Amino acid sequence: MKHYTRKEIDALDRRFRANLVNCLGGYKPANLIGTVSGAGAANLAIFNSVVHIGANPPLVGFILRPPTADVPRHTYENIKETGVYTINHVHESFVERAHYTSAKFEKGVSEFEKCGLTEEYAQNFAAPFVNESAIKIGLRFVEEIEIKLNNTILVIGEIEHLILPENALLENGNVDLNAVSSVAVAGLDTYHRVEKIAAFPYAKAADLPDFER
Amino acid sequence: MKHYTRKEIDALDRRFRANLVNCLGGYKPANLIGTVSGAGAANLAIFNSVVHIGANPPLVGFILRPPTADVPRHTYENIKETGVYTINHVHESFVERAHYTSAKFEKGVSEFEKCGLTEEYAQNFAAPFVNESAIKIGLRFVEEIEIKLNNTILVIGEIEHLILPENALLENGNVDLNAVSSVAVAGLDTYHRVEKIAAFPYAKAADLPDFER
Repeated sequence: MKHYTRKEIDALDRRFRANLVNCLGGYKPANLIGTVSGAGAANLAIFNSVVHIGANPPLVGFILRPPTADVPRHTYENIKETGVYTINHVHESFVERAHYTSAKFEKGVSEFEKCGLTEEYAQNFAAPFVNESAIKIGLRFVEEIEIKLNNTILVIGEIEHLILPENALLENGNVDLNAVSSVAVAGLDTYHRVEKIAAFPYAKAADLPDFER
Repeated sequence: MKHYTRKEIDALDRRFRANLVNCLGGYKPANLIGTVSGAGAANLAIFNSVVHIGANPPLVGFILRPPTADVPRHTYENIKETGVYTINHVHESFVERAHYTSAKFEKGVSEFEKCGLTEEYAQNFAAPFVNESAIKIGLRFVEEIEIKLNNTILVIGEIEHLILPENALLENGNVDLNAVSSVAVAGLDTYHRVEKIAAFPYAKAADLPDFER
């Protein structure tokens, strides 16, 4: 086993460390966030930091990196301008197209067009969904929380629209993500197919299997 | 396709809605968080809300549900008492044991013992690692951010220790999570095996494949 202390992590090459630390939490979801500017230009960007905040009210968060010269924050600017955005699952069929939405395009250039993905709109909702995505959420921005430690922002939205295939919705409310080939990400660049191995009941101490040795 | 509006989501059965909304972000990492109380009692709990915050400094976050009569927050109390905790990947070999750490045990009862997992300690670090886990992180608590919308808390820690197998660490700093059989979670109860399908270079607009139609 390799054991890194904090001092050793801090001494690593910057790019090596970025890859390493990005992998440490485990598998992450791959999502495309769709927005539109006040002037009407659609934008699309891949994020692997979407996190469940709560079901009632239905709240979803994502972490936004600090803005730099290399990484403008069109997604953030658009959300602040229009108040709405979409989260769309990335599936195996368009994982490369989704990845390349992370390239630095000029503001106003549509990643939809450049990456060959298709805008789709719901009634009375300004932000573009991704037509190729099977699971699409339309959100209204409710809060941004600054993480001062490293100038990242936790953006939280309330779900206003949810669009998904009937046959992926199970009786208990779970969604069969395997059925729609949603992918998982490790680190910054590695995409994965996912296959169910087990589902367990709500865990109760009284029904504990005999795990003791 | 099924299209739910917010009004329809709010009208769903509580448990159905909890399952549904928990699935919407996509695949999540499965991690065990190890803590110890000020009195020395070890605690272990599964979390699927670990999120990458930043690499420099190396920061990892997780979302903590509000405390209820059903779900005490031993993890939170212990972190506040001792200032340290561990994040340990869940692998296929012990996914059921990991799931059952979510059962409601009395404070002071060790989930390590009840679920047949093994405490492991690093020098000068109070919180227990999970011996069965291949990827183990020791963290020092740095900040808690209250999400007032629904009384959840984003807990952020700095990495002080990182323990992983040499052969899972790739040349560029990426970690081969397939090699150690880390699992992903969908919703609250469904665990998945994960298999790499693609890795792509850092995306540059100048190197964009011809996606346009």
